[in-house]
Amino acid sequence: MSEPENNKQNRHKKRMQARKEIVDAGVAKALEERGIVIVYTGDGKGKTTAAMGTVTRALGYGYNVVVGQFIKGVWECGEKNLLSQLPPEQYPLQWFEMGTDFTWETQDFEADKAAAQAVWEKLKAALADDSVYLVVMDELTYALNYKWLDKAEVIEAIHNRPREQSVIITGRGAKPYLLDIADTVTEMKSHKHAFEHGISARKGVEW
Amino acid sequence: MSEPENNKQNRHKKRMQARKEIVDAGVAKALEERGIVIVYTGDGKGKTTAAMGTVTRALGYGYNVVVGQFIKGVWECGEKNLLSQLPPEQYPLQWFEMGTDFTWETQDFEADKAAAQAVWEKLKAALADDSVYLVVMDELTYALNYKWLDKAEVIEAIHNRPREQSVIITGRGAKPYLLDIADTVTEMKSHKHAFEHGISARKGVEW
Repeated sequence: MSEPENNKQNRHKKRMQARKEIVDAGVAKALEERGIVIVYTGDGKGKTTAAMGTVTRALGYGYNVVVGQFIKGVWECGEKNLLSQLPPEQYPLQWFEMGTDFTWETQDFEADKAAAQAVWEKLKAALADDSVYLVVMDELTYALNYKWLDKAEVIEAIHNRPREQSVIITGRGAKPYLLDIADTVTEMKSHKHAFEHGISARKGVEW
Repeated sequence: MSEPENNKQNRHKKRMQARKEIVDAGVAKALEERGIVIVYTGDGKGKTTAAMGTVTRALGYGYNVVVGQFIKGVWECGEKNLLSQLPPEQYPLQWFEMGTDFTWETQDFEADKAAAQAVWEKLKAALADDSVYLVVMDELTYALNYKWLDKAEVIEAIHNRPREQSVIITGRGAKPYLLDIADTVTEMKSHKHAFEHGISARKGVEW
């Protein structure tokens, strides 16, 4: 091996050793084993998609998953096509949605609220069920911000859930009371969006 | 309906009408139909997970998907468990990985580079194949930033890909030359992470 090549190897090795120490130290400190609350918020693409990636992940281990979607009622979406066709005995998934049209199409507060409440009742039951490993509340922030759901009731149900259960909440505009109960919060921050540049939403990528 | 209730309905209706106008106007302008390049970067949780959510979504329509993973060589992960067990004639997925241990464990630049190059060759072939609808390059930013791959070659292959093909690139520290070729860029910005508060990475949620 030439001299510069050797230096490069050594530099790389040093950098990787330093990184290993950091990673190992982190793992050594992270000892608490319990379910977590994740909030995906912000104006960028990837919130619902990350939640659905996690649904796929949890089902991959055969864990019991419950998904409730607020707002995105009657849209076709690829991940639901696939996940709802899986054999339920191997991949136990329940999926609830409002079943109404997009909120800005229906323009009827009471109908939307009733539909959101129906989804919430299913999620509340899941949050009290210790056989459920992962509960996804997709676009929950809208349901709360539109006052379809009672904030205190939602927070209490999440707080009192079984210790091993994880929860994912998605949607723009998550308020501090949601961030406070979360263990992990990622803001999906949009720097660029194809849609704003005249490119239509892509089947199989954006829905 | 009582007077205040009625007002509330009207207010909601007005707000929803305004939103509908914005949404409709956006849809009317977004007419270009083609594959897009998405970059998920930033220090927060959700980059790989969002990519995997999109893999599930695209497969849900039966689209041909190719995934290449840089770095995450030998980790078990739930989504791969599930997706690799699907009937390939219905859900055509190819998955390539470096097959080495975590980079900071091996500490061998040449071995890592060779493993990354092998994954890249598969991805390069996919980027030239118009039967492939979605190409995921998970943790590509590391492979580029560590100089395992030739930047110009990667950019050129993405630029010259089939018009209908979409690409997702994930990883921290995406450089401007990657952001420039992207149509959509989301920064996953960490506000909080369970791991930093002593909670260990959760099976079925974080891997």
